[in-house]
Amino acid sequence: MPETKRPSLYLAGPEVFLPDALAVGEAKKALCAAYGFEGLFPLDNEIHARAPGERVDLVIYSANLAMMDEAIAAIVNLTPFRGVNADPGSVFELGYMAGRGKKVFGYTNVAADLAARIARENDLSLDEESGVWRDSQGLMVEDFGNAENLMIDACLALQNHPIIINDAPQDRLYADLTGFEQCLRLLAEQIQSGSL
Amino acid sequence: MPETKRPSLYLAGPEVFLPDALAVGEAKKALCAAYGFEGLFPLDNEIHARAPGERVDLVIYSANLAMMDEAIAAIVNLTPFRGVNADPGSVFELGYMAGRGKKVFGYTNVAADLAARIARENDLSLDEESGVWRDSQGLMVEDFGNAENLMIDACLALQNHPIIINDAPQDRLYADLTGFEQCLRLLAEQIQSGSL
Repeated sequence: MPETKRPSLYLAGPEVFLPDALAVGEAKKALCAAYGFEGLFPLDNEIHARAPGERVDLVIYSANLAMMDEAIAAIVNLTPFRGVNADPGSVFELGYMAGRGKKVFGYTNVAADLAARIARENDLSLDEESGVWRDSQGLMVEDFGNAENLMIDACLALQNHPIIINDAPQDRLYADLTGFEQCLRLLAEQIQSGSL
Repeated sequence: MPETKRPSLYLAGPEVFLPDALAVGEAKKALCAAYGFEGLFPLDNEIHARAPGERVDLVIYSANLAMMDEAIAAIVNLTPFRGVNADPGSVFELGYMAGRGKKVFGYTNVAADLAARIARENDLSLDEESGVWRDSQGLMVEDFGNAENLMIDACLALQNHPIIINDAPQDRLYADLTGFEQCLRLLAEQIQSGSL
């Protein structure tokens, strides 16, 4: 009897930049398997895909795209990375999957919202006329209580699973999988209830 | 005789957060018109769309999505925003348009590449064993000479129009339209040559 292929998930996030990225990827894939999914971790591409003379970045991009096109959904780690915002590679992938009409789930391991994180690095001031907060460069600060730029939060909220927020310890900032597992649970529930 | 509708372009970028965002939007739309396009500037949504009781962020998101779905292509301002990376809203939109199979163009007003920008804020160290550069948190630094995370640069490069790089003066960091106009010119050429 042929084995039924498990639905696959694209696992985006800045943990690919950790020294122990492979171990985090393996932990994510094991959790996926426990929930009946196959996890596709982008770093797997970086190890296998190299041909002489080819631009490695283009090879990795194409391999990641193929993984995303195979996956039924993505779970994206949106934990702030090198500043107040999420890793742009992961955000690109979130947008790409949304553009493909696929389910996208997101989590962050920092509980402070976007405006609070900007306020930590900037003296914010209230523009009395417009009622808008601005940072020290005069740039408007989105103040919707969201974890990220509204395009990210709204994309997830309108799919009926807002971003999962969890305050992870600093030494597990990118590797903590509490929020990741919550996303997996939500996805498994949606599949069981027939809404996906 | 009915007027032919000009093809429309989605104009993504962090200039929506400037105090004079409307003026920058008007300047972008005027340039689009000069090249035969209609520019769709996301801020236009924030002003018109409000219904009582609705979450404003979700209304803006849906209006931006409708603009992107109408547009034949996007031109994305990828100038670093509040840190080393591009505005995540703009990056989401780049990914979304790529996912929809549309043409995407990008420009940045900062000439220093990603690794150089990270090195300004971090003591980088070379991991001799793997040959990989890491920042002060141990996170890998992509060193492809790219302006951004490889997903962004590769997406544009594989569409045969790599990111346009231009060093704008600091007081015009988000508003300088030199790179924007180069993107418009490339797009107009592609349409004239029949490759779009």
